[in-house]
Amino acid sequence: MSSAEQDARESELTEQVLGSFADAKDPRLKALLEALTRHLHAFVREVRLTEREWQQAIDFLTAVGNITNERRQEFILLSDVLGVSMQTVAVNNEAYGHATEATVIGPFFLEQAPRIEVGGDIARGAAGQPCWVEGVVTGVAGNPVPAARLDVWEADADGRYDIQYGDARVTGRGHLFTDAQGRYAFWAVKPTPYPIPDDGPVGALLRTASRSPMRPAHLHFMVSAPGLRQLVTHIFVEYDELLATDSVFGVRDSLVKAFRTQPAGTPAPDGRELFDRTWSRVRFDIVLAPSGQA
Amino acid sequence: MSSAEQDARESELTEQVLGSFADAKDPRLKALLEALTRHLHAFVREVRLTEREWQQAIDFLTAVGNITNERRQEFILLSDVLGVSMQTVAVNNEAYGHATEATVIGPFFLEQAPRIEVGGDIARGAAGQPCWVEGVVTGVAGNPVPAARLDVWEADADGRYDIQYGDARVTGRGHLFTDAQGRYAFWAVKPTPYPIPDDGPVGALLRTASRSPMRPAHLHFMVSAPGLRQLVTHIFVEYDELLATDSVFGVRDSLVKAFRTQPAGTPAPDGRELFDRTWSRVRFDIVLAPSGQA
Repeated sequence: MSSAEQDARESELTEQVLGSFADAKDPRLKALLEALTRHLHAFVREVRLTEREWQQAIDFLTAVGNITNERRQEFILLSDVLGVSMQTVAVNNEAYGHATEATVIGPFFLEQAPRIEVGGDIARGAAGQPCWVEGVVTGVAGNPVPAARLDVWEADADGRYDIQYGDARVTGRGHLFTDAQGRYAFWAVKPTPYPIPDDGPVGALLRTASRSPMRPAHLHFMVSAPGLRQLVTHIFVEYDELLATDSVFGVRDSLVKAFRTQPAGTPAPDGRELFDRTWSRVRFDIVLAPSGQA
Repeated sequence: MSSAEQDARESELTEQVLGSFADAKDPRLKALLEALTRHLHAFVREVRLTEREWQQAIDFLTAVGNITNERRQEFILLSDVLGVSMQTVAVNNEAYGHATEATVIGPFFLEQAPRIEVGGDIARGAAGQPCWVEGVVTGVAGNPVPAARLDVWEADADGRYDIQYGDARVTGRGHLFTDAQGRYAFWAVKPTPYPIPDDGPVGALLRTASRSPMRPAHLHFMVSAPGLRQLVTHIFVEYDELLATDSVFGVRDSLVKAFRTQPAGTPAPDGRELFDRTWSRVRFDIVLAPSGQA
């Protein structure tokens, strides 16, 4: 068979699969399945995927499925390390004026997190240097946004989120609402760099590709208010040497913030008793785009 | 941000991910990961995948992982219904002279299957009409291939493979070797159309896309001999109305065979006592390409 005939045979197969979606009733689902089919087939044809490699891919996905449970989401990790998560963020959060940039949600967000008041503490006993986080939430015109909901979550000084401990602890996460002037503030711990969970198949993939699992230190935010585009983002710590090699490609320059170390004895902004500990503070003003801005 | 700037931002992200594989030591792995990244990113950008759709995709893959175990391989089903399996078969089994065409392996092959002699019975009690299968294995020059290993497997008359019953039965599968003249023959049951397992997420996907899970009736073969390209294929039953709409796109015209019904009382080719049952027979001569013919 000539290469032209082989090419035709492969193209015809793709067309046959595309044709199988002809009766799909939901036009968006149809478009998604057609595009997925075209791109997957183009991948197989371009790399001339061997049957052994296909089997290895099946085995890899099976292992990703096996390790995934309520506390471990290996499929999100896989999407993250291939930059698919960040690309999805990019297409859904087109820049709008000086609205704050979005980044990946990661696998550690929980819907249910404790409510704190403005000035409260989300650490709840998580190990780490106390860190005062404050800012104001506004629209792009500079108007303050009162009663915006902020969900915040982070790893502790050992680089672990609460749900990675396998006990019932709820630490390093919480939610609060901005006050009438759009202001928020809370105590947390200063973020610490950590590896994404690398004892599973995604970790093995990174090692095979000579890639580091490390993420630069960061603190997660999800910010929601009626009529405004929901923002899922992090702030990163200035001068972190890992900023250039984030394993999930989440860093945006605009999200790198100065965490200013406060020598032991420096009074806390809210008068909290810090027992002669060193602490730090960071300011993160958040600008939300109008909703409906892709 | 202009659409050109947005476009540049998305392209830069893809380049950043591609750059992360720069140190991968295995050049093939590097090429595979780079191509996978390019195609996945192109998919996300082309369809403007929403964050909700991304979450649905994560949830879908998680469900595929949850249902997969030693007896159920939902990732292979997913690959099959998207035609990815058949495209992989196509790129690995380019036509070579009149060598027998390959098709998908499916999720029901087992490495260990009972040995039978030429003329033996692979049904081992599987329900169905007795069917005599015979043929000769040759190379493309017509030379017989002695001692070729044939693995054969099939569903029973209820459309189920042994491993779908969840008990320890081993029915409808076996392996044998061609004789000195390259000939083989065995008893099986006449194949029956069946749905791929559709009580899981892949079945739900097919329903959402208004697609049938049905496969036309078929009998699986895997044929191996030193120096020859391993052949994984099926034979299909002539006049099966499902030939045009195989849920896994496995049908090739050259693999559709005449299963000739033999009225009750017709003597069996090997003198087997058929107790006045109707039976059928099919001939399938197999031509193997030289090995190394991708």
